[in-house]
Amino acid sequence: MLEQLKEDVFTANQRLVSSGLVVLTWGNASGFDPEKKLMVIKPSGVDYDKMTADDMVVVDLDGNVVEGKLRPSSDTATHLEFYRNFKGVKGAVHTHSIEATAWAQACREIPCYGTTHADTFHGPVPVTRVLTEAEVNEAYELNTGRVIVERFRDLEPLAVPGVLVAGHAPFTWGKDPQDAVDHAIALEAIAKMARLTEEVCAARHAPELVSYVGEKHYQRKHGKNAYYGQGLHSAEG
Amino acid sequence: MLEQLKEDVFTANQRLVSSGLVVLTWGNASGFDPEKKLMVIKPSGVDYDKMTADDMVVVDLDGNVVEGKLRPSSDTATHLEFYRNFKGVKGAVHTHSIEATAWAQACREIPCYGTTHADTFHGPVPVTRVLTEAEVNEAYELNTGRVIVERFRDLEPLAVPGVLVAGHAPFTWGKDPQDAVDHAIALEAIAKMARLTEEVCAARHAPELVSYVGEKHYQRKHGKNAYYGQGLHSAEG
Amino acid sequence: MLEQLKEDVFTANQRLVSSGLVVLTWGNASGFDPEKKLMVIKPSGVDYDKMTADDMVVVDLDGNVVEGKLRPSSDTATHLEFYRNFKGVKGAVHTHSIEATAWAQACREIPCYGTTHADTFHGPVPVTRVLTEAEVNEAYELNTGRVIVERFRDLEPLAVPGVLVAGHAPFTWGKDPQDAVDHAIALEAIAKMARLTEEVCAARHAPELVSYVGEKHYQRKHGKNAYYGQGLHSAEG
Amino acid sequence: MLEQLKEDVFTANQRLVSSGLVVLTWGNASGFDPEKKLMVIKPSGVDYDKMTADDMVVVDLDGNVVEGKLRPSSDTATHLEFYRNFKGVKGAVHTHSIEATAWAQACREIPCYGTTHADTFHGPVPVTRVLTEAEVNEAYELNTGRVIVERFRDLEPLAVPGVLVAGHAPFTWGKDPQDAVDHAIALEAIAKMARLTEEVCAARHAPELVSYVGEKHYQRKHGKNAYYGQGLHSAEG
Repeated sequence: MLEQLKEDVFTANQRLVSSGLVVLTWGNASGFDPEKKLMVIKPSGVDYDKMTADDMVVVDLDGNVVEGKLRPSSDTATHLEFYRNFKGVKGAVHTHSIEATAWAQACREIPCYGTTHADTFHGPVPVTRVLTEAEVNEAYELNTGRVIVERFRDLEPLAVPGVLVAGHAPFTWGKDPQDAVDHAIALEAIAKMARLTEEVCAARHAPELVSYVGEKHYQRKHGKNAYYGQGLHSAEG
Repeated sequence: MLEQLKEDVFTANQRLVSSGLVVLTWGNASGFDPEKKLMVIKPSGVDYDKMTADDMVVVDLDGNVVEGKLRPSSDTATHLEFYRNFKGVKGAVHTHSIEATAWAQACREIPCYGTTHADTFHGPVPVTRVLTEAEVNEAYELNTGRVIVERFRDLEPLAVPGVLVAGHAPFTWGKDPQDAVDHAIALEAIAKMARLTEEVCAARHAPELVSYVGEKHYQRKHGKNAYYGQGLHSAEG
Repeated sequence: MLEQLKEDVFTANQRLVSSGLVVLTWGNASGFDPEKKLMVIKPSGVDYDKMTADDMVVVDLDGNVVEGKLRPSSDTATHLEFYRNFKGVKGAVHTHSIEATAWAQACREIPCYGTTHADTFHGPVPVTRVLTEAEVNEAYELNTGRVIVERFRDLEPLAVPGVLVAGHAPFTWGKDPQDAVDHAIALEAIAKMARLTEEVCAARHAPELVSYVGEKHYQRKHGKNAYYGQGLHSAEG
Repeated sequence: MLEQLKEDVFTANQRLVSSGLVVLTWGNASGFDPEKKLMVIKPSGVDYDKMTADDMVVVDLDGNVVEGKLRPSSDTATHLEFYRNFKGVKGAVHTHSIEATAWAQACREIPCYGTTHADTFHGPVPVTRVLTEAEVNEAYELNTGRVIVERFRDLEPLAVPGVLVAGHAPFTWGKDPQDAVDHAIALEAIAKMARLTEEVCAARHAPELVSYVGEKHYQRKHGKNAYYGQGLHSAEG
């Protein structure tokens, strides 16, 4: 049942690990078949290096396990909320990747500081509100999905393919599981670039190299009498 | 003697290295058999890539070597203090992992900034007091264990499975050696996330991308006339 | 046609990935044959692990595809501008490497803070002006090349082998594609060193280790009665 | 001639790369035979992956090449100054490792912030003065060695096995080439820990996680009704 989608979801989960986005078992990827209205998702708390495509769990839109021996990801209800509400979304990813999580914990949306961001996100990366105590105490994972959907009331999910849940971590999605992983990788890079951009802008004073040392170093490698290397560079003026 | 525990402790030590928590030989993992009241621990200052399970040293609760040709870790007395005092703890780890050590050196406990933290630590990651000169000069490693136990007077070790020793580095523990390694990995990630969260909260001014450049980049990849890639994305609106 | 150059450009593109400069498909390298006036460049948006040397695209100085089944990099017009204007340049690279991109996004040139910088760049790493809306809306990639060439009006491209495009990311070049990759790697390291130099110069207060703990640690490893390790170090005084 | 030392120096150079301390060809290691008064050092500007033990160059204390087809490292005169002046030193390393270089560029010595530092360096990591223009223009590399030796007038080189050259980068040394590499690795870690310690001490305000979310996350994984994972953790109270 859904063998290709299981394979895709399994591969997406493995890529989360090989991309360095996942520490221990902190991540999961899912895929959706809109015709059969079924979701395939990673099992909960299973080591990535022991997992096979057959371990993927098939769940219907109400969260009932349709196929699979293992318990589905504890974040299953959040993923389902995406597929019920975000038209065209057929893959979703959750990680606690370090840089994006830092922005989520800071409860700050990521401003668009450059074209790397603009290539993937049409506008800032949004952050949800904090869940209320009641929302946490009953149906926590479902309500996590709901505050995300609420945040996207005026946004197009496929144009802004991810979100930061305040105090928690990022979710991303896309046209298929691989696309969702691409967006998780892009989000992590964008989050780091944005942090460093703000840091570089602080422009703290540091002593520039004295010019005669700089000149010496440049010339000993590239000048007429260069003596660095085996003579390969020294022909250059 | 204790072959399975030796294997587990050996594997735990190797995982410290493969997880990037250990520089040179700066780390050690141990395991405890509560029935036999014996601890298995890494030998001191041996290269990780030359170590075998047979090199693990068996020590009783008084620190006497019961089996093993090599000298046990110089931190043996600290580990023993855990097993004598922390009920249910059967594995312990010491590293100088960079991010957690920075908090230890700063003598700051790590506040709970997000769910990644809350998933593993029930409350802030505590920091010990600085040892007195007398405590350092006699039985230093034992006293390191004692200030940790003192710090946990009102804490549950299995709910707060780690500590920062002021001016030194982290120790973690758990229900078995692998669990202690999991907590060392989690602590390092949490420490980094907390540092970055504070940094992101500083929110220094940086110039946002002018909107027409952002629009151009988004549209050249995802718009009606997209020309990035081999046409795979360009069908999308 | 140009088989050696295709091989060189392919290898240069692979090295961008293995050097950690490229996330997903965000990067491209090209090479130039000044006699035939032809450029070889990576195809657009193709996965690096599926690419072969044969996929490289040959383009003339007007941007016409002379050979190749795939669409050339979307940054083709930028690369061509280098070969038309920068004498001696026969290789060029574009990445969104994190550290250099942070400086580009901050719209700051990188000051020369040390000899690592001076070994490769003769002076600060320059940053371009922001393109006007008109420049973005027509011939964006060509105009990106033009603002770079404009910025180098009084600079020698082979002595300053790279630039930061404001709000975008770095471009580097060199005497051949490998040289351009070397400069991309050097630029990323220099960008990181410069950021950290400014950070270290901020010199925030932190508590120094109490001297008796420091002394204990040094002596237990290196002193007369050292007990760290297997006795290998303990002979030392 | 000196086959074992050549092998050791070759291995030391390779370890610099595998430890991530060296970018491109920015690093070199040497070894010294005090009886024969000969130094073995890496050739200049040769790719690490093409180098063999036979490529190592043998030089006498006056800098004359005694054996070897390649030009010795451009930093040869600096290394020789160590062996002429530092008693017991039989290995030396130069890198431009990022974190240590940031301190060198900031012209700051590294304070002792913790036991990781104290385990390797007996006191702060010192920084040299800036060379004068005359010292740079004649015998630059020799004078680099001289300002290092000058800085160690009142220091014991084997107790403080490294230095930061102002505006340049670190040098380390030891009882043999491997020991010098160990110290280069330790210095890089110490430099990073010190930077992060100062950063963590800045203690910027960040929003703590609301307690009911933290409680929910801890309990869903570790509480009586835990539902994370495959039931492995849920037996715990």
